Amino acid sequence: MSTFAAAPTALIVHAHPEPRSFSTAQMTAAAQSLGAAGYRVDVLDLYADDWAPVLAREEFAPVEGPFKPQAEQLRAVEERTLDAAVRAHLDRLLAADLLVLSFPMWWFSLPAVLKGWVDRVFVMGGVFGGSHGLFGDAALAGKRAMLLFTTGGPSESFRPGGAFGPMDDFLFHIHRGMLEFVGYQVLEPVITYGPARMTDRERASALDAVRESVARVAADAGATVG
Amino acid sequence: MSTFAAAPTALIVHAHPEPRSFSTAQMTAAAQSLGAAGYRVDVLDLYADDWAPVLAREEFAPVEGPFKPQAEQLRAVEERTLDAAVRAHLDRLLAADLLVLSFPMWWFSLPAVLKGWVDRVFVMGGVFGGSHGLFGDAALAGKRAMLLFTTGGPSESFRPGGAFGPMDDFLFHIHRGMLEFVGYQVLEPVITYGPARMTDRERASALDAVRESVARVAADAGATVG
Repeated sequence: MSTFAAAPTALIVHAHPEPRSFSTAQMTAAAQSLGAAGYRVDVLDLYADDWAPVLAREEFAPVEGPFKPQAEQLRAVEERTLDAAVRAHLDRLLAADLLVLSFPMWWFSLPAVLKGWVDRVFVMGGVFGGSHGLFGDAALAGKRAMLLFTTGGPSESFRPGGAFGPMDDFLFHIHRGMLEFVGYQVLEPVITYGPARMTDRERASALDAVRESVARVAADAGATVG
Repeated sequence: MSTFAAAPTALIVHAHPEPRSFSTAQMTAAAQSLGAAGYRVDVLDLYADDWAPVLAREEFAPVEGPFKPQAEQLRAVEERTLDAAVRAHLDRLLAADLLVLSFPMWWFSLPAVLKGWVDRVFVMGGVFGGSHGLFGDAALAGKRAMLLFTTGGPSESFRPGGAFGPMDDFLFHIHRGMLEFVGYQVLEPVITYGPARMTDRERASALDAVRESVARVAADAGATVG
């Protein structure tokens, strides 16, 4: 794959408060791996950028009467009055062939700052609804997305019958409800279980495994979920 | 049930940006219903209180080396240095016999401000881990919790085989991963589908249904999920 004009773009949206964390090292490893595979890599670091995750009336043009978030998103797209930060992130999202959400799994879901990136940037009228439909008719149809994350618990806890519950069941709200909903083909997640308990040697080996998994998943459009 | 000394407490944690929304009216109806059933009702309105949902290094005592969120939560509980706002909310959570999370379903999950309330207030060492275990051994064991929310889509879309997917599957990450994880017995959710498309008459009727459902669910400890 060439890195010249026709290079596909990967947008990595990363959410960990510590630059020296395993999660951040894992994101960097994935970025290297995607770069080596010919992607132009765009990284959004939500903690570093101090992203404001709370969808609120103040980001929209003044409205009389009750504030209805989706109606205001739709109107802002139509009237070209989207908040500048949201518009900039939405443009980076729409330009990406591959979306990677990179995070530590907190409470079996996305950290709030990343959930609030979805709340604010997956704009009604911009990625679904309005002139777009849902799922296969939404704006990101034909593009791919994947999760890249760490857990606190060990992999055994996430197996069917494990102490927590099946990982696929926990991820359903993200895979189906966020990514497929806006049109993405969802790739296999790349997961590192329990990096907090690893030795330095295990950590280095885990980062190698991430590089390999990301390269394989990104290269293999057939390796999708569900 | 008496409203005197032995009255149980219900904590409602509400997350909608618009005081005149159906979601907020639904929360108020639920609060009335719980009050009528003998509960002392404590309401936390996250938008009104401008809750900061992003778990970050700055809320903890200074730490040398990499910031590890769970380790810092555990240390803050042990050393009694929890952030004052987190401590106050954690105390209200621990004092409640019934927790009600009240929200509009955004992206098949909690709005970011409410997810970040869980991220920051479900403190390791305070509600699970440390001297507490997980699930039946966690700090909220013996207490009950329920979801009270609205959807954009109609109920048909959330049936098995529906356009979106089964509601129970979307809620698994909250019911199992957040509420049961910290010990709660999870009650049946109270859901209003598509209030944005209702007439005033339908809306009034839906609020009556919420009052009845909340009274029934709160009174019936047997009506649990899973």
